[in-house]
Amino acid sequence: MNVMPFPKPRRLGKVNVPTVTLAHGGGGKAMKDLIDDVFVSAFDNGTLAPLEDQARIDLAAVAAQGDRLAFTTDSFVVDPVVFPGGDIGKLAVCGTVNDLAVGGARPLYLSCAAIIEEGVSLDLLRQIAGSMAEAARDAGVGIVTGDTKVVHKGACDKLFLTTTGVGVSGKVWNSAPSRRPGDMVLVNGLLGDHGAAILGARGDMALESPIESDCAALHGLIEALLAAAPGTRALRDATRGGLATVLNEIADASDTEIEIDETTTPIREEVKGFCEILGLDPLYLANEGKVAAVVPPEEADAALSAMQAHPLGAGTRIIGTVKDGEPGRVTMRTVFGGRRIVDMLVGEQLPRIC
Amino acid sequence: MNVMPFPKPRRLGKVNVPTVTLAHGGGGKAMKDLIDDVFVSAFDNGTLAPLEDQARIDLAAVAAQGDRLAFTTDSFVVDPVVFPGGDIGKLAVCGTVNDLAVGGARPLYLSCAAIIEEGVSLDLLRQIAGSMAEAARDAGVGIVTGDTKVVHKGACDKLFLTTTGVGVSGKVWNSAPSRRPGDMVLVNGLLGDHGAAILGARGDMALESPIESDCAALHGLIEALLAAAPGTRALRDATRGGLATVLNEIADASDTEIEIDETTTPIREEVKGFCEILGLDPLYLANEGKVAAVVPPEEADAALSAMQAHPLGAGTRIIGTVKDGEPGRVTMRTVFGGRRIVDMLVGEQLPRIC
Repeated sequence: MNVMPFPKPRRLGKVNVPTVTLAHGGGGKAMKDLIDDVFVSAFDNGTLAPLEDQARIDLAAVAAQGDRLAFTTDSFVVDPVVFPGGDIGKLAVCGTVNDLAVGGARPLYLSCAAIIEEGVSLDLLRQIAGSMAEAARDAGVGIVTGDTKVVHKGACDKLFLTTTGVGVSGKVWNSAPSRRPGDMVLVNGLLGDHGAAILGARGDMALESPIESDCAALHGLIEALLAAAPGTRALRDATRGGLATVLNEIADASDTEIEIDETTTPIREEVKGFCEILGLDPLYLANEGKVAAVVPPEEADAALSAMQAHPLGAGTRIIGTVKDGEPGRVTMRTVFGGRRIVDMLVGEQLPRIC
Repeated sequence: MNVMPFPKPRRLGKVNVPTVTLAHGGGGKAMKDLIDDVFVSAFDNGTLAPLEDQARIDLAAVAAQGDRLAFTTDSFVVDPVVFPGGDIGKLAVCGTVNDLAVGGARPLYLSCAAIIEEGVSLDLLRQIAGSMAEAARDAGVGIVTGDTKVVHKGACDKLFLTTTGVGVSGKVWNSAPSRRPGDMVLVNGLLGDHGAAILGARGDMALESPIESDCAALHGLIEALLAAAPGTRALRDATRGGLATVLNEIADASDTEIEIDETTTPIREEVKGFCEILGLDPLYLANEGKVAAVVPPEEADAALSAMQAHPLGAGTRIIGTVKDGEPGRVTMRTVFGGRRIVDMLVGEQLPRIC
């Protein structure tokens, strides 16, 4: 398991307890101590407001970077909270950074709200806060304000995090319906690792070597892609619902058909095997570090090279094309030469995957 | 019970179920239908991004209103989710609006992230989304982006909401340590109603007539106060931990003593009785529509008049003064002429009050 570095566990100064109690949620001294000890010490940065308060950000500095403020939010309820390749804290930072990046925005600031179950160990909280701090530093964003609530044992499952991000867009890069037949579909590497990592961590499968989550902040990769292929027509991070879901959304929004090729769609053999045994389709497995891009054909080579040159894009492949077929449909050309429909997921494949 | 108006319940178009299922959290078609039916239809406004996506806000329009972007977040886990005077939706909007307002910011936009327990009725969700929409309209803010997660029955208690707000400050109004002996402490009305309403709604007390939560958006009142008393030294909304906690924080940050007067501190007789029976101190009961303000003595009359003239400030009283006493201490002169220390709450008085 790939545990993130975190501040050395130390005992709370004034509240000498190893687990979170309801007192930590009461708004009083114990809560202040918890926030200071766990979160403020981990997130420490120039802009961090005392948690519970508001952050104040210089608007001129923001407006100098672009003309649109981007604003997005996401809750994270992943079970288990620590898994190979990351934890809920890393996920909460990368997920919201990616939501900003796929809209063409430069991520700037995050808020973090934590709902904590009574009885969670302070060491676990410190580990997760440390992961968040490290992921935020890596992504160049500041966690500048936050909140904590503590609920009775049984009223939530360990820890839920909600991160909200603000960023700025240079020009309004718009992934509106503008896909055209001939456009190419790229993805930056192996699909389904996050979903497989979570299932593995839940013990649903005994794996010889655990599959690690692909959890990563994609804004650098996306910046490189947009520089090389400014005509990029659509970007979506393939999280819940997997690649299949985002391709359906793209096809639906643009009234085009998308056809992908099974032979070039990168999926790890272990993930394929895993899915076969569990009766899952890896195209619907969640990713936390994969983006699907639709680029015009004349920019496809440049996009491919730029993405492959980035550390998070070494495995980039062109996996399909936009076709003048049935509007909103996604199909896959199989290894056997047939075609199958890759439909929108109607129900639930895997709960609490992110 | 004061149920908020809400859009007429109607059946989901494509997913014909009366309660939320795990399928609604899967990232697929059912989730999209839930979001469209419950949230998008309620929050409908010009800036609302398709939930799950980011909102894009015109930065020039924001920067024209001030030089600082204010950014704050809060999770709401109140139990029960509907109570006399409001519900978790109204609370989530008013709470974050108030967090912005007490920092001197004009609230502009909110995000809303919902964690929903499998089995919650769609009618309840619609009612709460309707409350949020109404509270946002009343406060003049837009709910512009959001997220939903669904967890297994038992993994959370019905519904948790996290709202994050962005606003703008005209000048940097700073409630930094600048209180001086002689400053007056004002509060805009009856204390403890929210806490009492929640306890009443939990059935902890059989009340003849239920006490209603004071849940309200205070930015208008605060704007009026700051216009009348621009020298205002501190503003805090007295939520979790009640008036006692915020006065301790103010005294602590300014190294002054605050003395309040029991005879002028406004508390409803029913709340006093209620607290006596339960062994609670109403000064620590949560409020969701009360602000404590510290103003210089020469502006106290103007502040009092301005607040009393506002619909949410009719009950405003001067309740105490800043003294050159023991730094960080809060005391109360009792009706019997004695003095008692009003200490910082160390543990937990009432969990899940907001």
